[in-house]
Amino acid sequence: MNDVLPTPRFGRLIGVSLGPGDPDLITRRGWAALQSGACWAYPVKKAGEASYALDIARRGGLAVPEDAEPLVFPMTRDAGVLARAWARVANRCVELLAGGRDVVFLVEGDASTFATFGHLARAVRELAPVIEVDTIPGVSSFSAAAARVGTPLAEEDDTLAVIPAAYGVAVIDHLLDEFDTLILLKVKPLLDEVLALLERRDLLATSCFVEKVGAPDERVVTDVASLRGETVHYLSLLLVQNPARARGELRRGCRKRAEALQP
Amino acid sequence: MNDVLPTPRFGRLIGVSLGPGDPDLITRRGWAALQSGACWAYPVKKAGEASYALDIARRGGLAVPEDAEPLVFPMTRDAGVLARAWARVANRCVELLAGGRDVVFLVEGDASTFATFGHLARAVRELAPVIEVDTIPGVSSFSAAAARVGTPLAEEDDTLAVIPAAYGVAVIDHLLDEFDTLILLKVKPLLDEVLALLERRDLLATSCFVEKVGAPDERVVTDVASLRGETVHYLSLLLVQNPARARGELRRGCRKRAEALQP
Repeated sequence: MNDVLPTPRFGRLIGVSLGPGDPDLITRRGWAALQSGACWAYPVKKAGEASYALDIARRGGLAVPEDAEPLVFPMTRDAGVLARAWARVANRCVELLAGGRDVVFLVEGDASTFATFGHLARAVRELAPVIEVDTIPGVSSFSAAAARVGTPLAEEDDTLAVIPAAYGVAVIDHLLDEFDTLILLKVKPLLDEVLALLERRDLLATSCFVEKVGAPDERVVTDVASLRGETVHYLSLLLVQNPARARGELRRGCRKRAEALQP
Repeated sequence: MNDVLPTPRFGRLIGVSLGPGDPDLITRRGWAALQSGACWAYPVKKAGEASYALDIARRGGLAVPEDAEPLVFPMTRDAGVLARAWARVANRCVELLAGGRDVVFLVEGDASTFATFGHLARAVRELAPVIEVDTIPGVSSFSAAAARVGTPLAEEDDTLAVIPAAYGVAVIDHLLDEFDTLILLKVKPLLDEVLALLERRDLLATSCFVEKVGAPDERVVTDVASLRGETVHYLSLLLVQNPARARGELRRGCRKRAEALQP
């Protein structure tokens, strides 16, 4: 009966930010997308392994659809392995989307902030440029960490920077002169070096360590010096505040100038 | 009958982040807090004026409770006027909380990120240290702007900074050497100067202007040069990406070192 089939229409690829761990921090739009009948896709590090993102949705009380699709993103810096994994994942997404059904890709935290979704979207559109991509933003781990600890990330004229700690202590030391709040992500490999720097700069008391914020095994450590020698989780951050930061003449001048320009 | 009254128990002060403008970006926890029967308090610039935060909740379809309380935060740098306004607002919050009912304070964007909630919470606790404060984090304007434009804020080894543009073009120029993505808030008073800098640095094509993201009158301008001479809204930001950023030897070294340390 359907001799003339319509041109296949791809589904949309939707990046759904789930927030950093507490399912109650999923947005209303994210929640609706998860329940829209779209195909779920979620990241795992190895085939058969648990997915942190999927677990957030599950803890929210959502039933994981039977056809939810794990996509393997291996934790490696081997360029060849990575390229093959990305090709596999992108191809599989295009296959799923070719059926015309939307695919929601589950992302922990915010899909635009240190997440793989941007890369995935680019890889998929390279294969099929016609595919529509939608990103549903979410709560970032550092916003949730600040709320959890009860300290602002930034107020009024403050400056805020977010960097992977792997840049090293020299860069961190330098940025502490420029920023009121510095968020250090992935502190695991050089935690002790960073703690030594914070001690040297007398910033231990205004620093805080937060691991898996909002998850059942969340950990908040305000006495960060006590972490010395510990192996911490990958999903951890240091929130460093530098209340004594000197704001140079230039900046004050610029601020005054800006004020003078305001009506 | 109640001759012996119980010691008055204060309600909790809850900062509810509503996200930057689209009510669908309110989190499930924020949404529940708004419907919990708590007293609503919301910021206005002048008595009788509209509230951007309240409008987000209203657009979400929520009925504004009849006893919702506007709190006046005047837009001024006059220290005396500000101090009196803050004292009034904090006192009124304590009065409301003294009844034992929770107060939800409506905050646009994320309550920890360039918001007044931190200041409010401190002022309230100075008057009554026993008052419990809870912050419900939310989607920041820059996460929503990145999602809207379809560009990541930061990926993998990227660095991200968020500063008020009022620091001036010299500071912005300098930070562009250090950051892959720079978010400039409150660009209104020096938009033309910033645009001239972006042109000089050949960054117009990788910059984007977003005003009132998620609101009905949201504006996204990818041809940022076209904004020259315009008066833009207070709730606007520039998302600047510097794809050609040079990452110095030190940083590469630190990154390599961190890699070598990883298992």
